[in-house]
Amino acid sequence: MLTVAMCLALLGCLQAQEFKGHVSIILLGATGDLAKKYLWQGLFQLYLDEAGKGHSFSFHGAALTAPQQGQKLMDKALESLSCPKDLALSHCDELKGQFLQLSQYRQLKTAEDYQTLNKDIETQVQQDGLWEAGRIFYFSVPPFAYADIARNINSSCRPHPGAWLRVVLEKPFGHDHLSAQQLASELGSFFQEEEMYRVDHYLGKQAVAQILPFRDQNRKALDGLWSRHHVERVEIIMKETVDAEGRASFYEEYGVIRDTLQNHLTEILTLVAMELPHNISSSAAVLQHKLQAFQALRGLQKSSAILGQYQAYNEQVRRELKKPDGFQSLTPTFAGVLVHIDNLRWEGVPFILVSGKALDERVGYVRVLFKNRAYCTQSERHWASEQSRCLPKQIIFHIGHGELGHPTILVSRNLFKPYLPTQSWKEVQAEPGLRLFGRPLSDYYAFRPVREQDAYSVLLSHIFHCRKESFITTENLLASWVFWTPLLDSLAFEVPRLYPGGAENGHLLDFEFSGGQLSFSQRQPEVLMPELGSVPKPSDFQVLRAQYRESPLVTAWPEELISQLASDIEATAEQSVRRFGKFHLALSGGSSPIALFQQLATGHYSFPWAHTHLWLVDERCVPLSDPESNFQGLQAHLLQHVRVPYCNIHPMPVHLHQRLCAEEDQGAQTYASEISALVANSSFDLVLLGMGTDGHTASLFPQSPTGLDGDQLVVLTESPLRPHQRMSLSLPLINRAKKVAVLVMGRTKREITMLVSRVGHEPKKWPISGVLPLSGQLVWYMDYEAFLG
Amino acid sequence: MLTVAMCLALLGCLQAQEFKGHVSIILLGATGDLAKKYLWQGLFQLYLDEAGKGHSFSFHGAALTAPQQGQKLMDKALESLSCPKDLALSHCDELKGQFLQLSQYRQLKTAEDYQTLNKDIETQVQQDGLWEAGRIFYFSVPPFAYADIARNINSSCRPHPGAWLRVVLEKPFGHDHLSAQQLASELGSFFQEEEMYRVDHYLGKQAVAQILPFRDQNRKALDGLWSRHHVERVEIIMKETVDAEGRASFYEEYGVIRDTLQNHLTEILTLVAMELPHNISSSAAVLQHKLQAFQALRGLQKSSAILGQYQAYNEQVRRELKKPDGFQSLTPTFAGVLVHIDNLRWEGVPFILVSGKALDERVGYVRVLFKNRAYCTQSERHWASEQSRCLPKQIIFHIGHGELGHPTILVSRNLFKPYLPTQSWKEVQAEPGLRLFGRPLSDYYAFRPVREQDAYSVLLSHIFHCRKESFITTENLLASWVFWTPLLDSLAFEVPRLYPGGAENGHLLDFEFSGGQLSFSQRQPEVLMPELGSVPKPSDFQVLRAQYRESPLVTAWPEELISQLASDIEATAEQSVRRFGKFHLALSGGSSPIALFQQLATGHYSFPWAHTHLWLVDERCVPLSDPESNFQGLQAHLLQHVRVPYCNIHPMPVHLHQRLCAEEDQGAQTYASEISALVANSSFDLVLLGMGTDGHTASLFPQSPTGLDGDQLVVLTESPLRPHQRMSLSLPLINRAKKVAVLVMGRTKREITMLVSRVGHEPKKWPISGVLPLSGQLVWYMDYEAFLG
Repeated sequence: MLTVAMCLALLGCLQAQEFKGHVSIILLGATGDLAKKYLWQGLFQLYLDEAGKGHSFSFHGAALTAPQQGQKLMDKALESLSCPKDLALSHCDELKGQFLQLSQYRQLKTAEDYQTLNKDIETQVQQDGLWEAGRIFYFSVPPFAYADIARNINSSCRPHPGAWLRVVLEKPFGHDHLSAQQLASELGSFFQEEEMYRVDHYLGKQAVAQILPFRDQNRKALDGLWSRHHVERVEIIMKETVDAEGRASFYEEYGVIRDTLQNHLTEILTLVAMELPHNISSSAAVLQHKLQAFQALRGLQKSSAILGQYQAYNEQVRRELKKPDGFQSLTPTFAGVLVHIDNLRWEGVPFILVSGKALDERVGYVRVLFKNRAYCTQSERHWASEQSRCLPKQIIFHIGHGELGHPTILVSRNLFKPYLPTQSWKEVQAEPGLRLFGRPLSDYYAFRPVREQDAYSVLLSHIFHCRKESFITTENLLASWVFWTPLLDSLAFEVPRLYPGGAENGHLLDFEFSGGQLSFSQRQPEVLMPELGSVPKPSDFQVLRAQYRESPLVTAWPEELISQLASDIEATAEQSVRRFGKFHLALSGGSSPIALFQQLATGHYSFPWAHTHLWLVDERCVPLSDPESNFQGLQAHLLQHVRVPYCNIHPMPVHLHQRLCAEEDQGAQTYASEISALVANSSFDLVLLGMGTDGHTASLFPQSPTGLDGDQLVVLTESPLRPHQRMSLSLPLINRAKKVAVLVMGRTKREITMLVSRVGHEPKKWPISGVLPLSGQLVWYMDYEAFLG
Repeated sequence: MLTVAMCLALLGCLQAQEFKGHVSIILLGATGDLAKKYLWQGLFQLYLDEAGKGHSFSFHGAALTAPQQGQKLMDKALESLSCPKDLALSHCDELKGQFLQLSQYRQLKTAEDYQTLNKDIETQVQQDGLWEAGRIFYFSVPPFAYADIARNINSSCRPHPGAWLRVVLEKPFGHDHLSAQQLASELGSFFQEEEMYRVDHYLGKQAVAQILPFRDQNRKALDGLWSRHHVERVEIIMKETVDAEGRASFYEEYGVIRDTLQNHLTEILTLVAMELPHNISSSAAVLQHKLQAFQALRGLQKSSAILGQYQAYNEQVRRELKKPDGFQSLTPTFAGVLVHIDNLRWEGVPFILVSGKALDERVGYVRVLFKNRAYCTQSERHWASEQSRCLPKQIIFHIGHGELGHPTILVSRNLFKPYLPTQSWKEVQAEPGLRLFGRPLSDYYAFRPVREQDAYSVLLSHIFHCRKESFITTENLLASWVFWTPLLDSLAFEVPRLYPGGAENGHLLDFEFSGGQLSFSQRQPEVLMPELGSVPKPSDFQVLRAQYRESPLVTAWPEELISQLASDIEATAEQSVRRFGKFHLALSGGSSPIALFQQLATGHYSFPWAHTHLWLVDERCVPLSDPESNFQGLQAHLLQHVRVPYCNIHPMPVHLHQRLCAEEDQGAQTYASEISALVANSSFDLVLLGMGTDGHTASLFPQSPTGLDGDQLVVLTESPLRPHQRMSLSLPLINRAKKVAVLVMGRTKREITMLVSRVGHEPKKWPISGVLPLSGQLVWYMDYEAFLG
């Protein structure tokens, strides 16, 4: 596919460059905002750049409006065309006159309109004795109009074979993965991939467009720096001061993540993070490396993001969308997202993406902050300013606005002197008093474009010159949606933090990350959102101690519960190690213990892991490396983070002689003798159990013929759920433990919790009711949802 | 032991506090520098603090000088005693008069002198109708005099049973582990552990003495911060402006590491890093936790340190020690050392220890810098100064001097407001213009002692009150020497970088760390050291590449060889993972690979461990957890430091059904099928072998009936050395590998290396000669000693 696309694209390019001919550019939505603000100016710039180089042009402004009125509107848009500073005014005026003459309004509404357009172009080309090079259709229209237009172009407006067709599309490209896929396949039925140019205008911004060339031209210096060994963090930021007023109907549907993070900031992320192709001018290679970067992105979770909404937003939505009084929008107008990339280059480096409206300043930048691995023996007073190894080291692609006001590329002077092509980038003169990221401008090598160009001018030129690497391919687009859609889904009902807007935001939107999680630095100062019902919050409750089935019960909100259980386990472990030199802990699988494992791994530094033996309470009959295996959960969430000696880890032998839980392999007996050999009296110091909604515990299910009584210590059992085959400690073995903790969490456990509280000792019906340590202690740990429903 | 010591110590304390009696303090070396500068003043302070609280005192200044002259010298020292500011001058004058009256010079030279002293004390106590509480002997004498004095005290000057004896010792406490041990056991033959007070006067400095109380009193705030998750680095710094002039004979023998790092900075390190005992006033608990911290220190290597020597030093040594003209001292006067602590709390956090003479400023501090895990959404201009989460977060124990000039404890205001006891610490008023570690003083909560105390006054009071936690126990001392001695040995012939001294040092002594290694930030500007004779140094050689037995040979000094092998293994690993998704590596046991394991663990961050399978080349038939087991070496030196998934680790099954290498347990067959199942074609990506002096490799010994040919992949063999029984990969299996590396190191291998270079393919005689991969590559890695003898 790619190769074919490349050939065709190349062919298009060759034609454009070598066989000069007539090019027709049709701007759909010629009287709209984007056209007025950027596109006509961009087309004029294209004409200025290309006129006289052999091609001839015609520009067709198109819209639904009737011809006369449309022409008037278009003329108005064209009136404000300005001349670039570096062009002599008289020459520009002349060219402007030509451009206006070549630009005509036409109504494009019906299929006939398109046929007429096609005919007109053909006629004109013939009349003027020209040869047609190609046609560019620029879709500056809402996405719902795409399909119709595309169908009409495809059926009536394709140029003759040999001339090229390019259609330019503006975002939004869908609302989530599914809708983006649908839109893409619809467009795909009318156009070839190489005919489509999806615009992300950020890719036309000069500092963004320079990221790959900069990495390429400074390969030698960056090779040793551009990785997790040296990079402390990457910030990709786009802050706006404006709000969504007047655009509420669009914004309310999309929100900040779809509006800027899924596209602009993600594209920048891939440019920074991707492996650098040998030849960065090969769009195919760039695309391939971008897609690899997408592959390596760690999936986002709800806790990867924090959301805000400026206070006036809800009122604006109510007004513009005529919503009822009680309406509460949950659409975020501010988001911070923490992205991790799980490859060797970037593992562990936080990529921070931030965007929002009604903030304190308008600015866009990418900041790569390097680790400080130096110690300066001289006191600060004696540092050679600018050059000291102890000053922050950073590379900044300043996209625009902010205090610098211009696109700028900055490299700390204590890093290296960057190379930038002198014909297009020049070094910035000092601006005393200007500080950036904590340092005066003089601390940086700073470069600015020789000639500043608007993003649309850049992109129109790239379209004309067939430079596809500045555009979003279908694969790229869908990869981005695959990444963002799960987060968007998980945040759908999240309440954003309200912020006043502007400088008044203070530190309200500052946030911090630890592990993979983000949280606002300041606790919510007051309830800014009207109440959302009377759901009790975790902080309303303390850990409660009570009784359940005549044994101690600890009950709390999940976080406190897990934290209490972890502390209790550590205390038991310390006691065991003090008394016996070791601690034998048997752990259950499932999802509830995961939070416990994480808590133990990250919060309990003095846990005596070196003296702890880890056993499994039960196991699914799958290979140990299978993601379904209980052992894998233990491995991923605990063992990877602590130092348990290899020989103290005792997975269940469910996979012997390449078979799973075959009776004749005697796996259960093997595990039983391992326990007998290592655990005094086969009495574990602590067994952690869960409870199923059917009253099962370990892998002992109701009516199990094995494991509920008898002499066997370890048994094979059958689960009603897949995978059916299990290995499990038996009830008699569990009941020999010195301590048994049962962890029960979540609303779904409410019914069985109620039921089991009332039943007697009936392990055949409810295996959990058979848990009663002979001479040990039983403690129940239940969260409020399981206990109180 | 500890318990007995505690009881006795406690008894001493009780006596001191409850049964007030007479205390004799004998200052040995009463006319020396230390006594003149600090000790008499400290004793006077003790008298000021304790007089009138029930005890009576006598102070005996002692030295070798004859009585009259000695008394004169001592009077001179006593003349300059000063009164503390917080005491009324008249009252102080009165007390000073008393103190002078209680202070007498006496010559202590012969055994009889000591007997007389003892008699005099007893007589005086009796005459005055007092009861003797105890005696303090302060050794302010050179260490060579210790033994004699100690013998005399022990034989003639012990107080009657029921009264306590305390002897106070000043460093140096040895020159390395062995000499420290000898000195300690010598002293141990005269005194009980609880009678000895080894002084590290840094522990008496107020900011240092406050480290543990500060951690204790701010437990709640620090609990969540004091770990690798939050700490970026810790700097423990002691910079001096003075040089060693006049003390060259001492300094030339010790150097900066023995002079300050082994004692002062290491003590501070343990105070910062140790787990906090529940009760910090229990010296036993503090000692135990300190020793645990020592246990967790990662061994230092040559590359953990950088050394410097101020330019004038060599001339000073020549002059003071009357060395010949060509003499070149290698003694470092500046050192930076990178320490890592391998426990869950501190893993990966760099602890930087720096000390030196002739630097730009005199200052001592501990700086704990926290990670910046915040993003501030507002631009810098809008940050609430002092409080922003994005400003550096640090805690500094400023020990003294520097710009602050006083002991001070500083906590960044964006961290937390610390608690310090108000009776002894007061908040510091703002000092405009003063900046510390990049921030104005106003950015910190800063506390200073209400009453500044000299370290010796503090320590003398602690000795009097029997607060042993401020002193160095024998165990503590030896643990520190165990840590430092290998580094000192490895640096013995290292040439330090010369520096001019003072502010002129510029950035010459700045250094950077990466992995576990330190290096100067600036390359050596020129060769400042004259030549050191013609002993070849490792750096004089390159890694040489040649041929051995018609295969490539890499030969170098051990460090370079290991480093080359590690890099080659990493390259092979990366290639395998890229091509096959995994890397199958079979490793040999023995001592040579240990350095390799360490190198891989600490220097190769991007090694794809998550995709690496580790196999054993051979194993001794002992339980896996036996220290003799090859697997244990792998575990201790590699697995504990990297993240290899449990299921990728493949120890040899030498211990099945509680038996070792029983034929009927089919361990070898089991391992062979595991290999067949997981390793494509049973062809390892890399096999690492060694070579024995008898030409054996793996556990394949000359004349072995198994493993040298045939179909078996894994075999049981017999070693001529204990433990005799072994399991080993067979030659045919080894020869299926894609790559085989043979590592041969040390002079003992010289003969076999010569021999094997000449023999043909005779695996029965020399199994190593049978190593010849069928379609893979063989590379020999030999150090110069093995290769050149």
